[in-house]
Amino acid sequence: MALINGKPRDVISIHDRGFQFGDGIFETIAVQGGELLCRKEHFDRLEAGCRRLSIQCPDKALLENEAERLCQSLDLAVLKIIVTRGTGGRGYQPAKNAGSNRILAIYDWPGYPVEYSRVGIDSYICSRRIAHNPEFAGVKHLNRLEQVFLRQEIADTPFPEGVALDSLDNVIEGSMSNLFMIKNGILITPDLSRCGVEGVIRQLIMEMNKVAGNETAIREIKLEELFEADEIFYCNSLIGIWPVRSIDNKIFDSSDSTMEIMRKLVIDNRIVAG
Amino acid sequence: MALINGKPRDVISIHDRGFQFGDGIFETIAVQGGELLCRKEHFDRLEAGCRRLSIQCPDKALLENEAERLCQSLDLAVLKIIVTRGTGGRGYQPAKNAGSNRILAIYDWPGYPVEYSRVGIDSYICSRRIAHNPEFAGVKHLNRLEQVFLRQEIADTPFPEGVALDSLDNVIEGSMSNLFMIKNGILITPDLSRCGVEGVIRQLIMEMNKVAGNETAIREIKLEELFEADEIFYCNSLIGIWPVRSIDNKIFDSSDSTMEIMRKLVIDNRIVAG
Repeated sequence: MALINGKPRDVISIHDRGFQFGDGIFETIAVQGGELLCRKEHFDRLEAGCRRLSIQCPDKALLENEAERLCQSLDLAVLKIIVTRGTGGRGYQPAKNAGSNRILAIYDWPGYPVEYSRVGIDSYICSRRIAHNPEFAGVKHLNRLEQVFLRQEIADTPFPEGVALDSLDNVIEGSMSNLFMIKNGILITPDLSRCGVEGVIRQLIMEMNKVAGNETAIREIKLEELFEADEIFYCNSLIGIWPVRSIDNKIFDSSDSTMEIMRKLVIDNRIVAG
Repeated sequence: MALINGKPRDVISIHDRGFQFGDGIFETIAVQGGELLCRKEHFDRLEAGCRRLSIQCPDKALLENEAERLCQSLDLAVLKIIVTRGTGGRGYQPAKNAGSNRILAIYDWPGYPVEYSRVGIDSYICSRRIAHNPEFAGVKHLNRLEQVFLRQEIADTPFPEGVALDSLDNVIEGSMSNLFMIKNGILITPDLSRCGVEGVIRQLIMEMNKVAGNETAIREIKLEELFEADEIFYCNSLIGIWPVRSIDNKIFDSSDSTMEIMRKLVIDNRIVAG
């Protein structure tokens, strides 16, 4: 089930710049009971992503209306929205008024084992590294070869998610999620100014933390420091939160604060209850 | 005019992994008098690119046959071939037997001013930098946001091409071409093991040079060193060779060796005469 520029279609021109160059951005949204979870946050980030890449952002009311039409009757599903820099010629250079194409598509809910949220997951450090690319850092753009290869690496392990480092042994994120660590009650998440994707749930967790009167430390986290954490968790719009039970052979035996954050997100209807 | 998996179509599934993640590779081939220039070299690199990304390479005979069918009646045009990791689901992780999709499309010949080849171009140093990404360096893959933004930057200048550096002030390539410099008769081209695209014409020029009994130096070129060059030129399959007449305000007053290389490529029917 998909809409392309408002029309029910599931094919796009091979001259679309998303297909030619990965010249676009996307959002992945959890749909529950016909509602888009974190709706405002996703549409705000979509707009911010278009601004970062100088892509003409589709009319928000129109986009939200199309999203509603697609999702209103869905109990549990995934809405993926892609916005590309329109349909262009062969060359890299965009046309002056390239405009944009908007693609909304519905996918099955991934349905990860509920234990991943309830008791946590065992994880590991990926061998593949994420390259620094400050110009596009934070943006959820369509140049995703790195994530494809990270997922492929992880598929050959028993672990559902892995810690991706940069070339300097800084912890950046998971292959499809953001990462937080908690040390002495302080919430810490990697600085993503050189690489990584600024996730909607990551942002929400930091805002919740601020409302509760706490600052979140956004900074470099070296690999060694990660192993000194009291708690570690992954988060994104579809997995919600996965507490980390172990990384390689190091066990993290508490996840109390992580569970508290998860409960808040579920109560506020921000993530689907695991 | 296009063929997708052998069928005359110009639309592709939005679930194609090239569209979803830029998960694929491409070739851009000059077509003259119904012939594909550097045909073997392009198909060899396409195969090598698929191998680098573990994408199932389409049958080469089939691919070449489809290319012939499309191009036989064309006097002067561009053939672009895209091979993606097939049509997948929503997630980054490829299906076990993802297969591949092959897209062949014909485009108009760009028709750059002949002076660019005959008398050379004025050029400049791009302010945007190319990020190091050793895992995919050299490969002509579909994650091309950097080139899109480099072209956009260059479009706001009077120059047809610019020198792209990495974050360490190493000369890497042009925004859509490879770069060579000549110093004291020695041909030198940047090491592309950390970023950049290994172009077919770049490879050919090095082989021609070897046949002539000369080694080409493939190594780091610092920005300062570029300004000490006797000659500089850009090359790719469509522009052929563009000698550089000046970079910023530094003038390069000879292009004799560059012109000699260009003549050889034209005589061997490797590039279209400017």
